[in-house]
Amino acid sequence: MGHDITDAKQLFTTVTEDGKLVLSIEPYAVPEPEDHQVVIQMEAVPINPSDLGLLLSPAQMDTARSETVDGHPALVADVDPAMMRIFAGRKGKKLAAGNEGAGKVVAAGTSDAAQALLGKTVTVVGGEMYRTHRVMPAMMCVPLPEGAPAKEGASLFVNPMTAQGFINTMRAEGHEGIVHTAAASNLGQMLAKLCVKDNIPLVAIVRSDAQKKILTDVGVTHVLDSTKDDFMPNLVDALAETGATLGFDAIGGGKMASYILTAMEQAAAKRGGEFSVYGSPIHKQVYIYGRLDTGETILGGGLGLYWGVGGWLLTPHLEKVGMERMMEMRMFAVEERNGIFHSEYSSQISLMDMIDPEIAKGYDKKATGEKVLVNPSL
Amino acid sequence: MGHDITDAKQLFTTVTEDGKLVLSIEPYAVPEPEDHQVVIQMEAVPINPSDLGLLLSPAQMDTARSETVDGHPALVADVDPAMMRIFAGRKGKKLAAGNEGAGKVVAAGTSDAAQALLGKTVTVVGGEMYRTHRVMPAMMCVPLPEGAPAKEGASLFVNPMTAQGFINTMRAEGHEGIVHTAAASNLGQMLAKLCVKDNIPLVAIVRSDAQKKILTDVGVTHVLDSTKDDFMPNLVDALAETGATLGFDAIGGGKMASYILTAMEQAAAKRGGEFSVYGSPIHKQVYIYGRLDTGETILGGGLGLYWGVGGWLLTPHLEKVGMERMMEMRMFAVEERNGIFHSEYSSQISLMDMIDPEIAKGYDKKATGEKVLVNPSL
Repeated sequence: MGHDITDAKQLFTTVTEDGKLVLSIEPYAVPEPEDHQVVIQMEAVPINPSDLGLLLSPAQMDTARSETVDGHPALVADVDPAMMRIFAGRKGKKLAAGNEGAGKVVAAGTSDAAQALLGKTVTVVGGEMYRTHRVMPAMMCVPLPEGAPAKEGASLFVNPMTAQGFINTMRAEGHEGIVHTAAASNLGQMLAKLCVKDNIPLVAIVRSDAQKKILTDVGVTHVLDSTKDDFMPNLVDALAETGATLGFDAIGGGKMASYILTAMEQAAAKRGGEFSVYGSPIHKQVYIYGRLDTGETILGGGLGLYWGVGGWLLTPHLEKVGMERMMEMRMFAVEERNGIFHSEYSSQISLMDMIDPEIAKGYDKKATGEKVLVNPSL
Repeated sequence: MGHDITDAKQLFTTVTEDGKLVLSIEPYAVPEPEDHQVVIQMEAVPINPSDLGLLLSPAQMDTARSETVDGHPALVADVDPAMMRIFAGRKGKKLAAGNEGAGKVVAAGTSDAAQALLGKTVTVVGGEMYRTHRVMPAMMCVPLPEGAPAKEGASLFVNPMTAQGFINTMRAEGHEGIVHTAAASNLGQMLAKLCVKDNIPLVAIVRSDAQKKILTDVGVTHVLDSTKDDFMPNLVDALAETGATLGFDAIGGGKMASYILTAMEQAAAKRGGEFSVYGSPIHKQVYIYGRLDTGETILGGGLGLYWGVGGWLLTPHLEKVGMERMMEMRMFAVEERNGIFHSEYSSQISLMDMIDPEIAKGYDKKATGEKVLVNPSL
C-alpha cells in the first residue's frame, strides 16, 4: 500500500536561540502508513485562536519580514525579550502546528478500518495539520457524508467540542445557565445556537453593537455590551433572571471574571436568599479558557467563599467525559456542520501564503468570529 | 423534665440602622427541651477567627466603648461606612454568635438519647454558643470521656474538622501534598500534626521565626518564611521536592495564591515535564478558606490554564463527605483532643468580659495560634 507522494511540504514554527520567531515551509517526507493508518491530503485547516499561541504568540508581528532560513522560505519576526523566559521550553525546537482540519484519504494501511477510508473526505484532530499530508490512525478520522467538501469538515473539533464541553460542564456541576464573554466569536456563536436549541439560559457578553446583533439574530435574549455604562446593573438583572452561576471567560486578564462573580452574588441577593458572612451559599464558578488579555486576573475581595475561578481546557475535559461521550459529540458536530457548528471564513489561503508577512498580520479574527482557512494543497 | 433556669444570659451582635455595631448581653428565656433535646450549660466557648466575622468584622474597634443599649449592658463601636453596604443583609437584626463549644447537660427531654446525656459534658456545634445555656438536639452532642473538663471539648469542631477536611479534599482531588499559609495558626498546627502523623508532604508558609519554630518543633520539614528574600526559590524547591499541587490559603487577598501557583508551575518544570502553551498539564489548585487580607486577589497572567482558585468552606465540605465520614471525623477529634487537636488559650473570660472594650480588642489571636476562651457560666 505504498504511496508515491514526493512534493509534500510542512510548516514549522521555531523560536530561535537569538530571539526570533521563524515560520518556515520545508519539504516533508511522508512516511508509509502503518496497517492502521491513513495518509490524508489536507485541504482545509483553520487558523483558530488556539492555534495562534503556538504559531505566533511570542512574535512582535509588526517586525514580520520574509527571509530565507537554512534554504527554506520563511517569515521571521522578533520576539519580545520579556516573553523569551516564558517560551524557554520551546527555544530551538522546530514545532509543527495546526490543531484540526479536513482532507481526502489518498493512501491507507492494510487494515480494514484504514482501507474503508480510502478516497473519503475526513475530519481530523491531532496537531501538525499545516502540511500537505498528514498520517493519522484511521480510528481518529471521522468521514464526512459523501460529497461534502473538506471545508465543511475543517473546524469540527476545537470549537464544536468546546461548545458542547461547556454544556457538559454546566450539567455535571449542577448549574442552570451560562455566562459567556467574547460571545460573538466563532465558538460563541456555536454556543449561542446550542443554548437556543436546548433552551439553556445564556448571558452573552460582547463589546460592540455589531457583535450584539450577531447573537440577537441567533435568538439570544440576554446580550450585554460590556463597554456600556449600564453593563453591571444589566448583568445583575440578567443573572437574576436566568439564575446562571457558571461563566466561561475568554479574556482571562483584568476584572471580567470578578465582575461576573460579583454580579452573580448580587443576583443571588436579588433572587432572595439567606444572609451569610461567606456570601450566598451557592457555588459560583468562572472558567477561564482563553487569554485575550494576558495580564493579571484581579478578583474583588468581597466575593464570599462560595466561588471558584480556574482554567478550562478541552483535552482534560474530554478525558473526563470518556470516549463514548466524545464520539457522540463528534458525530453531532459532523451532523450540524452546516447548522449549529457552521464556521465563516474571511479568506482562504495556501501554505505559502501562511508565511506572507502581510497575510500573517491578519490571522487574528477573534472579534468577528471569522477565521482564516488554509488549503495546504493549493 | 422541666428546668428551673431563671438567670440565663446571651450575647447578641447587631449592626444598627445608624451604622453602629452593638454587642449586648441580654436575658435568655431557656425553652423547655423537647423530647429529643437537651439543655447544655455552656462552660467553654472559643473565639475562633471564623467567629469574628459575625461578632466584630464590621466594627472599627478603636472606637469601641461601653454603653447601655435598651437597658442592656453593651459594647458599641462605629462601623466603617464603606462596609455598611456589605452588611446590609444583617442591618437591625439581633444575631447570636459562637460556632462551637462544650458544657454540661443540665436538663434533657424524655427520649432515651436525651436522657443518656444528663450530667455528661458534651462538645457541640451549631452557632449561638455565646450564652449561658444552649438547647440542642441530643444527636448533635458528642459526650467527652468521663472526667474530661469542658475546656478540652471547646474547640473540637471548627478547626479539627477543617484540618481533616483539607486532607479529605487532597485525597478526593488526587493531590499528593499540601501547601498551607498562616501555617502556625491553631488550625495550622493541627494540620501540621495530622500531616506528620500520616506522612503527608506539607509545605508550611509562615511570617516569622517564632512561627517557624512552632512548626519545626511539630516535625514539619518544609517551613518557609514568606517575609524572607529567598522565599520564592525556596518555595519552588519545596514544591519540586514534595510534589504538592494543592494549597489552602487563609490570606485570600493579595498575591499569595498567585505565588503558590507560579511556584507550582516552576516546580513542575523542575520535576521535568512536557512543554505546553497552557502550562504544565497537572491541575494546580489553591483554596481560599479565610480572608486575613480582604483586598483583591491578584493572579499572575502566566499561570497557563491547568489551575483553579476558589473558596473552601467546612459546611459544604461536610455535606459532600456525608454523615458517616463526618461522625468518624468527630470521634477522631474527641480522641485526639489532647494531642493532634489540642488548642492553646491565651485567656479565659466571662460572658460579661466579652463586651469589655479592652478585652474585645484582643480577640484576634490568629498569628500565634492561641485563642480566647469564654466560659459563659463564670
